[in-house]
Amino acid sequence: MSDIKKPTILLSNDDGIHAKGINSIIPLLREYGNLIVVAPEQGQSAQSHAITIKEPLFLKKIHEEEGLTKYVCSGTSVDCVKMALNNILSEKPDYVVSGINHGTNAAISVIYSGTMAAAIEAHIHGIPSIGFSVVDYSEDADFTASVHFARIILDQLIPSRESGFCFNVNVPKGSIDSIHGIKVGRQARSSWVESFEKRTNPAKKDYYWLTGHFINFEPDAVDTDDWALRNGYVSIVPVQADFTAHHQVTEYKHLETKVLNHSSK
Amino acid sequence: MSDIKKPTILLSNDDGIHAKGINSIIPLLREYGNLIVVAPEQGQSAQSHAITIKEPLFLKKIHEEEGLTKYVCSGTSVDCVKMALNNILSEKPDYVVSGINHGTNAAISVIYSGTMAAAIEAHIHGIPSIGFSVVDYSEDADFTASVHFARIILDQLIPSRESGFCFNVNVPKGSIDSIHGIKVGRQARSSWVESFEKRTNPAKKDYYWLTGHFINFEPDAVDTDDWALRNGYVSIVPVQADFTAHHQVTEYKHLETKVLNHSSK
Repeated sequence: MSDIKKPTILLSNDDGIHAKGINSIIPLLREYGNLIVVAPEQGQSAQSHAITIKEPLFLKKIHEEEGLTKYVCSGTSVDCVKMALNNILSEKPDYVVSGINHGTNAAISVIYSGTMAAAIEAHIHGIPSIGFSVVDYSEDADFTASVHFARIILDQLIPSRESGFCFNVNVPKGSIDSIHGIKVGRQARSSWVESFEKRTNPAKKDYYWLTGHFINFEPDAVDTDDWALRNGYVSIVPVQADFTAHHQVTEYKHLETKVLNHSSK
Repeated sequence: MSDIKKPTILLSNDDGIHAKGINSIIPLLREYGNLIVVAPEQGQSAQSHAITIKEPLFLKKIHEEEGLTKYVCSGTSVDCVKMALNNILSEKPDYVVSGINHGTNAAISVIYSGTMAAAIEAHIHGIPSIGFSVVDYSEDADFTASVHFARIILDQLIPSRESGFCFNVNVPKGSIDSIHGIKVGRQARSSWVESFEKRTNPAKKDYYWLTGHFINFEPDAVDTDDWALRNGYVSIVPVQADFTAHHQVTEYKHLETKVLNHSSK
């Protein structure tokens, strides 16, 4: 691949510019093209698709060398993508990659994830995108297997200039050899059930820390991301940004007719 | 309806407890049941499905009378719902209502909206829910038509104990008479295109304010929410929390087989 034809890849995450996960995937992505990193200055985990509208945003270039430029942004993961598209890049990047996230973004966790929000924001703008996460929340998580499988997946997408996808990729915790392969499936129906921890501060005021545990409503569904991860597979879920419950649009059409009657009341 | 059988309704929003929108719908919702309001202390617009995990949450009861209790929460709209379910209510509420939001949450705006995130969070927990928004961002927006149509919609849902829905309801700006009726449809394919406003602070540091304009990729699609609103109809979109692009799961199955080959490399 000649330099002229190298794709431009934008990389973001939600754990922040200093996280081990994002820095683990930089060398791999540089093999595929020119890499622009725009990541949050501070962790933005669980900030979902939030954007910053009440405060100004700051952007700072912190590193520049042939094929790699890094910026930090004061905002959320979605702010990073928007800033890159508007204030850094002269044209849309060929791909947006997000992660590697410290912790799973499979099943319902996708809705809370800033990492996946960055990928989905790119998708809304028509840019093929992919978010990577490993099922390990620790700051010092091992990203060896994640990078290994990221290469396998990206090898099938970038050299052939595949487009039109937005993938939520989750990698089990463990060594490369402990992982059985890849499953392409769907988001498991699930929820996080909270169990706030109530404490009292020195001024005798109660406060709460949000904690919770994950519930899969369909643990035996073999076509889901959570099943894949629990059974030692990398999970790929193609995602989209349409919230419509299409099967219900017809079901609730009667709400229209009822209303047409009201004007004659 | 006897008092004993009155449903419990949880109300939240993203404009905060003092917004005109949430206070406009309280009298209406009290007609249907016992109302618990748990709303953010400060505005949480565009905070999407963000949850607060790096800071503790505070919750304060600020009002109590027969059939109406109000709390403020220091967190996001989704935090409010989680707090209500875990630390206020002894059992799940019968309905969760969110809004009335100052500004549209139709089309792609649903993904940024804290108001809709509160409704969707309820839906994830199996609680029927509905978010109301009016296409008017002003603090002093007129909610007369919104409340009028909210009544028409809720009259068809709550007395008959309808369940299984999560609705994104948007009401055009204007008087009741200027609105032609209700359309049940789908989310329009669309995006917000940003145009950051760059400024320089007194310390000569550049900063950016996020602004943007809305683009509908299918302006003539009559079955979409944006079409309904532009043509003087209230829009109802049934929503869900599944991000899977189901039509692509089969399309990308080949990523599985390619990987199975890798182990023999």
